[in-house]
Amino acid sequence: MTFSIHGQAVSRGIAIGRAVLVASSRIDVAHYFIGPEQVREELRRLRQARDAVIAEIEQVQRGLQETASMEAHPELTALLDVHLMLLQDVQLQEGVTHFVQERHYNAEWALTSQLELVAKQFDEMEDPYLRERKADLEQITERLLRSMSGAAPAIMAPTSSQEGERAKGSHGTEDPLVLVAHDLSPADTLQFKRSVFVGFATDVGGKTSHTAIVARSMDIPAVVGARGASQLVRQDDWVVIDGDAGVLIVNPSDIVLAEYGFKQRQGEVERQRLARIKNTPAVTLDGERIELLANIEQPSDTLPALAVSAVGVGLFRTEFLFMGRPSGKLPDEDEQYAAYCAAVEGMHGLPVTIRSVDIGADKPLNRSSRDEHLNPALGLRAIRWSLSEPAMFLTQLRAVLRAAAHGKVNLLIPMLAHLREVQQVKALLAKAREQLDARAAVYGPLRLGAMIEIPAAALALRLFLKHFDFFSIGTNDLIQYTLAIDRVDESVTHLYDPLHPAVLQLVATTIADCRAQGKAVSVCGEMAGDPSMTRLLLGLGLRSFSMHPSQILAVKQQILRADTRKLRAWAQQVIESEDPAALMAN
Amino acid sequence: MTFSIHGQAVSRGIAIGRAVLVASSRIDVAHYFIGPEQVREELRRLRQARDAVIAEIEQVQRGLQETASMEAHPELTALLDVHLMLLQDVQLQEGVTHFVQERHYNAEWALTSQLELVAKQFDEMEDPYLRERKADLEQITERLLRSMSGAAPAIMAPTSSQEGERAKGSHGTEDPLVLVAHDLSPADTLQFKRSVFVGFATDVGGKTSHTAIVARSMDIPAVVGARGASQLVRQDDWVVIDGDAGVLIVNPSDIVLAEYGFKQRQGEVERQRLARIKNTPAVTLDGERIELLANIEQPSDTLPALAVSAVGVGLFRTEFLFMGRPSGKLPDEDEQYAAYCAAVEGMHGLPVTIRSVDIGADKPLNRSSRDEHLNPALGLRAIRWSLSEPAMFLTQLRAVLRAAAHGKVNLLIPMLAHLREVQQVKALLAKAREQLDARAAVYGPLRLGAMIEIPAAALALRLFLKHFDFFSIGTNDLIQYTLAIDRVDESVTHLYDPLHPAVLQLVATTIADCRAQGKAVSVCGEMAGDPSMTRLLLGLGLRSFSMHPSQILAVKQQILRADTRKLRAWAQQVIESEDPAALMAN
Repeated sequence: MTFSIHGQAVSRGIAIGRAVLVASSRIDVAHYFIGPEQVREELRRLRQARDAVIAEIEQVQRGLQETASMEAHPELTALLDVHLMLLQDVQLQEGVTHFVQERHYNAEWALTSQLELVAKQFDEMEDPYLRERKADLEQITERLLRSMSGAAPAIMAPTSSQEGERAKGSHGTEDPLVLVAHDLSPADTLQFKRSVFVGFATDVGGKTSHTAIVARSMDIPAVVGARGASQLVRQDDWVVIDGDAGVLIVNPSDIVLAEYGFKQRQGEVERQRLARIKNTPAVTLDGERIELLANIEQPSDTLPALAVSAVGVGLFRTEFLFMGRPSGKLPDEDEQYAAYCAAVEGMHGLPVTIRSVDIGADKPLNRSSRDEHLNPALGLRAIRWSLSEPAMFLTQLRAVLRAAAHGKVNLLIPMLAHLREVQQVKALLAKAREQLDARAAVYGPLRLGAMIEIPAAALALRLFLKHFDFFSIGTNDLIQYTLAIDRVDESVTHLYDPLHPAVLQLVATTIADCRAQGKAVSVCGEMAGDPSMTRLLLGLGLRSFSMHPSQILAVKQQILRADTRKLRAWAQQVIESEDPAALMAN
Repeated sequence: MTFSIHGQAVSRGIAIGRAVLVASSRIDVAHYFIGPEQVREELRRLRQARDAVIAEIEQVQRGLQETASMEAHPELTALLDVHLMLLQDVQLQEGVTHFVQERHYNAEWALTSQLELVAKQFDEMEDPYLRERKADLEQITERLLRSMSGAAPAIMAPTSSQEGERAKGSHGTEDPLVLVAHDLSPADTLQFKRSVFVGFATDVGGKTSHTAIVARSMDIPAVVGARGASQLVRQDDWVVIDGDAGVLIVNPSDIVLAEYGFKQRQGEVERQRLARIKNTPAVTLDGERIELLANIEQPSDTLPALAVSAVGVGLFRTEFLFMGRPSGKLPDEDEQYAAYCAAVEGMHGLPVTIRSVDIGADKPLNRSSRDEHLNPALGLRAIRWSLSEPAMFLTQLRAVLRAAAHGKVNLLIPMLAHLREVQQVKALLAKAREQLDARAAVYGPLRLGAMIEIPAAALALRLFLKHFDFFSIGTNDLIQYTLAIDRVDESVTHLYDPLHPAVLQLVATTIADCRAQGKAVSVCGEMAGDPSMTRLLLGLGLRSFSMHPSQILAVKQQILRADTRKLRAWAQQVIESEDPAALMAN
């Protein structure tokens, strides 16, 4: 039966493929396809984990019998017996084995997929009490996952090559695959950058959620906020992702399939047309030269950046170094230095702006830490976290300083709101240089920049101006805080509005104040990569845009057609209007 | 052994008493002392709940045996046996009975206290696996609590009289009592308004957390963010709460006790001195008349408001009608109408500003809904929630309109950010009037006001001005969003700063723009009730302050000493300064 689920259009294009369901788990596990030759090894890892957990529980039981705890809580022993029964359940084991052998899921993915299946059976039970019992299953599963993470293989999947070639065949089907999940974890999103999927659909998320950003960065169609998708779509269902309309179509009829096939080819034609302006300089009709920079997430992203003639990296996110680490340890100075050098050298002399780590909110080191704070987006994240962990921050600063010996490096500080924080950053930067001097290490000069993404920073820009060489407006967070809208909470996405007069006012005054003081200013949020916003930003005086490489040509096309002299007065009208969206349509 | 725990000073004064520990539970239960004559009834409720849960589980087991589920999951039956064992555990039962009989805790409190004790035993077990097992205990406890809530007694405790008289004796001790908890739930804070406690200490929270606001509203000393207090303090320990320094002193020595006793008496003298200006009109030295309004949380709060000569209610929070309802149902129109009338009539002709319900963030209807959204403060709350539940909102609007027939009533809308929301509010208000007309109900005229508490609203005030009769600046949320700081997250309270130049700028321009357009403007956040901010707000042109009644006299004292002509230029300097705090000290 054909049906469709409406969500948010977050990454353009059409994808057609078979659904692959990814179960969510409280532990942030990696999902990837293994090669046929790895099946034995994955099954061995599963057996080993099960044996280890059984041995642990048995040891606990023996310990209980030897101590007084036993008398106090006889029910504990009985409870442990239940968990041993669960671990030895044949049905559960066969299910997991099936996912490894037939679908070539890695062990962790197989385990959580089977958990999801059984959990669904529990959910269907009429009695609420039985439904709650699935918590025990989840605990056993977490215990198995933890046991496996002790001896985890390399995180990156070995089956799909680095260059993005689709590794067909290894996952047991020649059909293109579409990922359907409740939500993607930060580890998944890094993982899937090298995966075989042609499209994403998730139950939750908004236009600037992590899933959406990653989909755009991979330039594959995605729909988020498609409520219930992961429950309603079945494994292997054919689905169409209409990333332009924000619709997920399940089990499409032949007519629908044909129509979307046509649309898909049209998109390809448009893409080829854009490729023609790859080497055209980004200059407006009135001769204004515009800087088009790339946002990158890992050193290898410099290749797609150069492929579209980006003139530098405007935002190198360093979170990839800190996330999804099986060891749980922070990256050391040399590991970071190597990564930053790789990006700097990859850009062949063009400038690279490295942002200090922006962990927190929707990007915790591991998912369980989410529960600790009620509003992580308003909590200890980004520079706040860095300043509360000076040893960690100094390590990153030293690595960036050393990389600066190899090319033009800018350091960008996220989430600044207080002058005191600026002073602390500068003091720590001085200390990092001292530490490098003390061991006679080579390092280079840095330009220092501040993200303007908290309303307080935009409003009190005058306090910050003299302390920095450049500024970068992070529109995603700026909108989130100015409107008090969580950008990943789909119950309020209808209120998320980049064209709200208050948002436009903060963006406009930040650009104007920086220009008046002769400070470089760029926009690096989603707004910069949205071609429908290009003319407005040009009209407000912006001359530097940083975005994902996949957006650069579409934005350049807008620039080539623009005359900034004519846009200025119109932009002023837009930001003073009660209804900017109406004027934008003109 | 004497030791002290440092936290945040959130409600001034000194309290000395014995610690009463309140366990936190995932279910938001009420905690109160029962009278000796109620012991039997509470024990009966406990027995009844236990019997009901046992019967439920046995029925589930029978159901399992009859269906195929049994074959699929034999471990389920075993698991249910464990839960039955837990329910029949003699040690657990005796503990609960003890709390009811000896300490006169209500049944729910006794149950969660015993859970906390046993959970501590589990926590002390060396094996992490055993520690996790306490989840089963928690589930049983929740099940019992749910069973009891079906037949819950009236929420309010019968032992302490409405007039705040300390009901000594009923709780088994003549000593004053200090409450120590991990955190207070919204239901608790309403509950404790009528309780016997002389002070609060909680592990978490910041200066504008719910706990802090309630403590100030009760005018009792409190320290929040006292990390580990609920773990380190033992039941019945003597403690001193130094609400001026933000310190909790446990088991104080005699010398320390004597010193704090002296401080306590000094505070009393200061209080008596303030009482002398109760009937003095709030007029500055240069003859400016200042409006001092009360924030109230329930109709009976009009008494303390009139006792300090408040000239009206500037903020009547209506959440008390929506929270801690055992039935889980929303209040109907007549219940709301009765409450609003009680407040309007209680003020004897003085104006009452009723704020539409501000549920969400730290005030969910019931606590379990917290988990659904990652950042509730940025989610569907206040007017956003009201507009998404039009039937609920219309009910409230009709009740307010009808109450307006009995006196001067203003309606205040919280969390507005978009012009569209304003239009929706006005349309629903028109519809509520139509509905009342249709049934020929009597209603009165309303003045309509908007809370300015989201940066977007302050920045785009020009869009809102013509649509409202008055404006009220909610500084707590305005600071929270402008600085991107969760005010209840203690890991970032050091960054929460009402004197941040950006915050002052928004407050200053909002006051100035309203005055320029002849619109009434008031401040109703914590800033209004802070005597150290009074001169600044006067200097910025504010002539209307709304605060908890307990703050009114201290603020009035500042007003009587102020000359607004001299404050204007100084206030301008403060808001333009890089370091306003330094200038404020002068």
